[in-house]
Amino acid sequence: MNQKVIQSIVEEVVSQFSIQSTPEKGIPIAVSARHCHLSRHDLETLFGKGYELAHKKALSQPGQFAAQETVSIVGPRGGIENVRILGPARNLTQVEVSKTDSIKLGLHPPLRKSGDVKGSSPVTIIGPQGSIYLLEGLIIAQAHVHMSPADAARFQVSDGEYVRIAVENERSILFEKVLIRVSPDYKLDMHIDTDEANAGLIATGTTGKLSKYAGPS
Amino acid sequence: MNQKVIQSIVEEVVSQFSIQSTPEKGIPIAVSARHCHLSRHDLETLFGKGYELAHKKALSQPGQFAAQETVSIVGPRGGIENVRILGPARNLTQVEVSKTDSIKLGLHPPLRKSGDVKGSSPVTIIGPQGSIYLLEGLIIAQAHVHMSPADAARFQVSDGEYVRIAVENERSILFEKVLIRVSPDYKLDMHIDTDEANAGLIATGTTGKLSKYAGPS
Repeated sequence: MNQKVIQSIVEEVVSQFSIQSTPEKGIPIAVSARHCHLSRHDLETLFGKGYELAHKKALSQPGQFAAQETVSIVGPRGGIENVRILGPARNLTQVEVSKTDSIKLGLHPPLRKSGDVKGSSPVTIIGPQGSIYLLEGLIIAQAHVHMSPADAARFQVSDGEYVRIAVENERSILFEKVLIRVSPDYKLDMHIDTDEANAGLIATGTTGKLSKYAGPS
Repeated sequence: MNQKVIQSIVEEVVSQFSIQSTPEKGIPIAVSARHCHLSRHDLETLFGKGYELAHKKALSQPGQFAAQETVSIVGPRGGIENVRILGPARNLTQVEVSKTDSIKLGLHPPLRKSGDVKGSSPVTIIGPQGSIYLLEGLIIAQAHVHMSPADAARFQVSDGEYVRIAVENERSILFEKVLIRVSPDYKLDMHIDTDEANAGLIATGTTGKLSKYAGPS
């Protein structure tokens, strides 16, 4: 190995070490259970004309909330009841499940970032006043970190970039490809699903460590 | 940073790179769904005196097999049916579930290596001829790699050591603390549970890459 390669390895290692060892660079992690975002149109099909969701709990991202209301989702192999609706209403209906859930449903949702539902899996949604056969909209959500532009500057990352997030405990795990999402509306928070949480024995409130993604894009 | 620190970093990085880049050092991965090992005494309580398990399928480790028979397991919050029994009979009854399963059961099994059931979670097992309230024996199995002494020499690892196993795909993941188990009876195979599999979109047959564990023991 020549001197240049050695130097680049050392610089990379040192840069990661310095990011990881700065205590204020921890990323709070929130575990997302299966849930559903509804369009205004689909909300009214499921719950009736003019229906408004009732707040149950504010979520970490400003303005977002868990509603009192739930729906059932169904696939060719089975159904899951009590799937929480998150508000407010969005342009597109989207259902986010874990891989474990998808096996129970007998469906094959792709791994996608939130909002990217084109060509994703169909799913049936059942509400108290009606049901919908969604042609696409069922996804497994890609792990991601919400952050403000100030946080992005602090972590030296930008919107759309992939980073690695390490969680240390008795079942330590490293998520190799975590999407950075930057917006002035966002509060620092990493979202993982229940499979990722259970594989790493991670509960909401755990902190991860960010380092630069080194693999193929 | 002094020259010595730089040198040790470079040596560590180069050693890991050389392990990871050797193609024959891939580790085949098998996904273990929830299952149950029974003692001869407990087998007879559940299935009747003198009962013998029927072979359904040979497993990757020589002599081990999935039986035709299944049991139900129950906790304070719920039950799970069709839990596969693995044979042959062992000295101690042990039930291995995922964290996801444990939430459904309402039980709190510890993360353990197989066989280490002392002080683990209680669980009820129901068979066609009887049931057992096990005072301990329910665990979440720690990810591990079975290998022969020849494989251990090839990977430069020893029994009881922890290594890191990386899996690369669209949901790349790195298991930071994977136990090495060496025996002349073992065939090279990494065992992970369904939570770990689903968190990394890993199916049986996927290959992982081994590198040295760098964290605290």
